[in-house]
Amino acid sequence: MQSYALTVDKFLDHAAKWWENREIVTAGAHRTGYAGLRARSNRLSGALKALGLHTGDRVATLAWNTQHHLEMYYGTMGAGFVCHTLNPRLAVAHLAAMMNEAEDRVLAVGQGLIDLARELVFHCPSIEAVVLLDGAQVGPRPIWDRQVFAFESLLDTHGAEAEWGAFDENAPAGLCYTSGTTGAPKGVLYTHRSNYLHTLRALQADAIALTAADSILVAVPMFHANGWGFPFAAPAVGAKLVLPGRSTEGAHLAKLIQDEGVTVAAGIQTVWLGLLDHLDQTGQDVPTLERVIIGGAPCPDSLIERMESRLQARVQTSWGMTELSPLGTVAPAQGTVRAIASGQVPMGLDLKLTDASGATLPEQRNVTGHLKVRGHSVVDRYFKAKTDALDAEGYFDTGDLATIDDEGNLTISGRSKDLIKSGGEWINPAEIEAIIGRLPGVGQVAVIGQSDPKWGERPVLVVEPQQNHTLDDAMLLEALCGNVADWWIPDRVIHVSQMPLAPTGKIDKIRLRAEYTS
Amino acid sequence: MQSYALTVDKFLDHAAKWWENREIVTAGAHRTGYAGLRARSNRLSGALKALGLHTGDRVATLAWNTQHHLEMYYGTMGAGFVCHTLNPRLAVAHLAAMMNEAEDRVLAVGQGLIDLARELVFHCPSIEAVVLLDGAQVGPRPIWDRQVFAFESLLDTHGAEAEWGAFDENAPAGLCYTSGTTGAPKGVLYTHRSNYLHTLRALQADAIALTAADSILVAVPMFHANGWGFPFAAPAVGAKLVLPGRSTEGAHLAKLIQDEGVTVAAGIQTVWLGLLDHLDQTGQDVPTLERVIIGGAPCPDSLIERMESRLQARVQTSWGMTELSPLGTVAPAQGTVRAIASGQVPMGLDLKLTDASGATLPEQRNVTGHLKVRGHSVVDRYFKAKTDALDAEGYFDTGDLATIDDEGNLTISGRSKDLIKSGGEWINPAEIEAIIGRLPGVGQVAVIGQSDPKWGERPVLVVEPQQNHTLDDAMLLEALCGNVADWWIPDRVIHVSQMPLAPTGKIDKIRLRAEYTS
Repeated sequence: MQSYALTVDKFLDHAAKWWENREIVTAGAHRTGYAGLRARSNRLSGALKALGLHTGDRVATLAWNTQHHLEMYYGTMGAGFVCHTLNPRLAVAHLAAMMNEAEDRVLAVGQGLIDLARELVFHCPSIEAVVLLDGAQVGPRPIWDRQVFAFESLLDTHGAEAEWGAFDENAPAGLCYTSGTTGAPKGVLYTHRSNYLHTLRALQADAIALTAADSILVAVPMFHANGWGFPFAAPAVGAKLVLPGRSTEGAHLAKLIQDEGVTVAAGIQTVWLGLLDHLDQTGQDVPTLERVIIGGAPCPDSLIERMESRLQARVQTSWGMTELSPLGTVAPAQGTVRAIASGQVPMGLDLKLTDASGATLPEQRNVTGHLKVRGHSVVDRYFKAKTDALDAEGYFDTGDLATIDDEGNLTISGRSKDLIKSGGEWINPAEIEAIIGRLPGVGQVAVIGQSDPKWGERPVLVVEPQQNHTLDDAMLLEALCGNVADWWIPDRVIHVSQMPLAPTGKIDKIRLRAEYTS
Repeated sequence: MQSYALTVDKFLDHAAKWWENREIVTAGAHRTGYAGLRARSNRLSGALKALGLHTGDRVATLAWNTQHHLEMYYGTMGAGFVCHTLNPRLAVAHLAAMMNEAEDRVLAVGQGLIDLARELVFHCPSIEAVVLLDGAQVGPRPIWDRQVFAFESLLDTHGAEAEWGAFDENAPAGLCYTSGTTGAPKGVLYTHRSNYLHTLRALQADAIALTAADSILVAVPMFHANGWGFPFAAPAVGAKLVLPGRSTEGAHLAKLIQDEGVTVAAGIQTVWLGLLDHLDQTGQDVPTLERVIIGGAPCPDSLIERMESRLQARVQTSWGMTELSPLGTVAPAQGTVRAIASGQVPMGLDLKLTDASGATLPEQRNVTGHLKVRGHSVVDRYFKAKTDALDAEGYFDTGDLATIDDEGNLTISGRSKDLIKSGGEWINPAEIEAIIGRLPGVGQVAVIGQSDPKWGERPVLVVEPQQNHTLDDAMLLEALCGNVADWWIPDRVIHVSQMPLAPTGKIDKIRLRAEYTS
């Protein structure tokens, strides 16, 4: 059969040819069709070449969800450069470390991020040029001694038609760092092939199921793991693409959904809470909305029910990771199956549950195990790492603990590194946290291990009360009785006024352990 | 990212793990789950190895749509053998030529096909063993001196677990011959990669859109171009698979749809005419049916309307070819877009229209051109051919004339080899045939070219009246006036009592030309 490289530029080529006038809308700013987007992105490739970039060179983006950012995606990837997306909410030191490891040569910067960019450029000698997206202004202070281009001027002065896709499908396309709460951030280098296959996998009718009739609101940042793949999936099917810019506030999203006839929306649950609150306060509705895809963290049933009832839309829970491009599992788009847990696994990803030693569990259903994955869009080796991150069977360790029910629904039940080993047996903090977290007056909650001369480790409960609440230790522990094994009940309760958070917003257990258990 | 070969055995592995009890139903015969199907197909691989087959060896199937035939698909492909599907409706000489070119080593034969198989084996010395599917009996006459195994006995005596997928994704998986009305049949050798990608492409929500909630009736023969891909698509998503066996009669299909809760059905239009007639005669309904996918030939609007109204199901027209694996275009599964023409083109296939010399037409919309295609599941070179079947840009010539409208809907308007060149300009017989074919009393109709000293060629109209009808030449030609250019109007009308047909059921224009215009 024909040789046909699976490269992501083909998605935009397809959209430009068949869905030339389907719109890409940036809130309060640009509006264009796929043909226009393709022409501009391609001219951007020419401009980047004119700046001296070569195949495989990395271009960093520090930007929100906008047309310019999308053009940076295709302008880099189409020409064989690597789009390195940066999360503006991370610390300067972390970002600079990523950029230096990536040896980024160009930095594209969105609105409101110039001061951060100035700091980063100071720490990153490899950056030769800065591109200002979305009308961002440098202001009176220059960005050190780097060349600075406004995006539109760069297109005007350096833009030129460029050849796209003239490379192997295994060429790198994107770079995204994980930013867990442990250790140094690790880079995942996506290839054209992995992104292409991820897109087709996600487009299945039982998964993300986008169509040309859809208008998709991408409320997940484009710097998070390929923007969950929507920058590829939308042009691949000719869906209208609605980009909210920086804000994901309820009022902003509600207006976008109403103005742009949004049918599918994707983002983490906090975003949808804001939308719900806004709709409740104003009495507005979002009648065009049909589906909401949520991910990032397990979603409580009560929130799913509130969303489905208030939005009159189907909620699709999902589970994914940067290392998975990112889609792992997702609840089906249609049918009578309720959104349970984090959904089921579409073709192209193999899951297995192992014990702590890595041995495959004899029974894979209704038991908790360490979740390992294998597939066409899964990392094998972190960027610039010396060894593969795979087991002997070629599986990647997600670091998650999970169960799978009889219908194949996955439930993430904790992180393996958070497990506490007491008397030779494992205690799963996540299960205790879930119970305590539901109690009245409890804000944030974390369970960490403290070393113990007799048992090896023992659990300690750390709680942050909600404002104006006092928590009673006995009441807290009482709630666990009968719900977890007796020996899982923490030995000690620590009250904190503010839980330490990592840059990602997750609780920083490393700091907790350092502060309270050593 | 991880190396992950795109091989079709992964579809059945996926189904066996996640949809183990979803059924594969063969009308009046077997019923099993995907886990059972996987185990049996895998043991069949072991049996074929025990017969001495090696990687890449061809195994022919002469069979209907049954579980055994599906097991032959996976039993061969999973182990790296090639499944060569044969159309039992072709002439012995054609089939024997295909088998000899393929050097098939094993022939699997379904019910009612033993006599044909006996003839084929006589002509094909490479066949070493015959496998009897679905309880087929050899009868008192042996099959020459070949080994003969009943399918179940072969599994019992030679079945063994076998390793699947231990080869490159570009390894061959299937072989299917085109059987056009011109020239010798040509083989298309599908690879694992082309079949895998074809499956993902077809599964998009705007295309075939199968889900785990579906029950799919495959009324297209499994010997036609991968059975339109359903043997792969169904396990890939865990859909229930309903196989009708040999019969596609209306009463048989109606009962299957009712008994097995069929939601999606696929087949050529004649099959659905039989279903409609049966439902009208009996007053029955098929309430579970949601969609019908038709292909094989352009479908008249009146039939689409009758189907949608009587079946209360959405009709998806499509266009494809053996050389395309076979899906080319398809009308979307949902939404407000009406099924027009042959639908739109999902990602993964590029189309272009050229003139007769092969030059790309400057305007691609609303003009008729020669349709060329490029994609991951398109043939590059016919089996054992010495040269590629591609143009300089890597496109394959479909041999079809087509137009594409502003919405991207493809309409096939004829075959390029049927075109008649008169006075240096082209006449498209298909357009004349369409007009004449709608006249009362007209059965079959064909327009062919006759050489002419002045104009080069001139059109001749050949008609077969419906039973008990007489056709008036002047009336026939009058119907063309104003609907085609004056110089397109045929010079001569020939009445035949029976139009000569090729083995595929299409009108044999070669014979017509030989008989009436030379």
